[in-house]
Amino acid sequence: MFVLGIDPGLSRCGYGCVAGGPDGLRAVAAGVLTTPADQPVPRRLAALRGELVELIAELRPATVVVERIFFRSNARTAMSVGQASGVALLSAVEAGCGVAEYTAAEVKLAVTGYGNATKDQVQQMVARLLRLSAPPRPADAADALALGICHLSTSRIAEARTRAHRTVEAVS
Amino acid sequence: MFVLGIDPGLSRCGYGCVAGGPDGLRAVAAGVLTTPADQPVPRRLAALRGELVELIAELRPATVVVERIFFRSNARTAMSVGQASGVALLSAVEAGCGVAEYTAAEVKLAVTGYGNATKDQVQQMVARLLRLSAPPRPADAADALALGICHLSTSRIAEARTRAHRTVEAVS
Repeated sequence: MFVLGIDPGLSRCGYGCVAGGPDGLRAVAAGVLTTPADQPVPRRLAALRGELVELIAELRPATVVVERIFFRSNARTAMSVGQASGVALLSAVEAGCGVAEYTAAEVKLAVTGYGNATKDQVQQMVARLLRLSAPPRPADAADALALGICHLSTSRIAEARTRAHRTVEAVS
Repeated sequence: MFVLGIDPGLSRCGYGCVAGGPDGLRAVAAGVLTTPADQPVPRRLAALRGELVELIAELRPATVVVERIFFRSNARTAMSVGQASGVALLSAVEAGCGVAEYTAAEVKLAVTGYGNATKDQVQQMVARLLRLSAPPRPADAADALALGICHLSTSRIAEARTRAHRTVEAVS
């Protein structure tokens, strides 16, 4: 099963596709989609949308995982991150994919076991879990892979719980 | 020429279509698009997108005008307004419309001549300029009509300036 992580942004939108199977996790694809800063925002959103539609059609992920953002940074960046996130969620739903959202803290917790882990610690764990010789570059791609890992491990725990629950029901 | 104003939001998205001609301004359509609060955000974005695509196809505006938002309010609302704004801008570009963005202060200034006008003053002027017997309801629809009026008067001033400039060139 493929899970596509998306770290939304208008200037740089990280993506990372992770496959989960019985023999562990595997990185399928990762990179960054960029749109030219000298173009008007609506055109850039349409360009990002085109790239996302292509990426989803190519990878056919079961689930698209988008980082859930809280606005604390400057208003200009926040607005374009919100807009890019809206376009990413829309593209996932329209392609018929499942959609999940996690905050940065949830991703850190799932990947490193520690919600306050540094960016570097997350990237080291991403490399280790995906059996890569070095953390994926650029950082936006690694962050997107971390989103995919977070979803796969979170759903695995949920599935295990359901199975355990069913076993308890069967014996009781 | 039709101009479609959009006051973006996920729970309530105001729209107002204004026609500008030699005999003044006219309201063509106005209302509010809503999405059910009990549905997940990605589904709501897809629903909003569907409604916007339909609205644009029906009204065929030359330009879609979206309110440019700055984030000062609470993070949860800000995020969904950003996402809705992204979906609105995308839908406008993909339908081949021109796109313009104005801040609330720019709209107030264009409609009432005063950048700090109250919501009520703006709505009274919207009714007057569109020759309606009362301010349009709900308020989101009136705000969207104000966006359309703002764009039409701003472009009219820009055109007049260009014409004046050409006249000066012709006589000099």
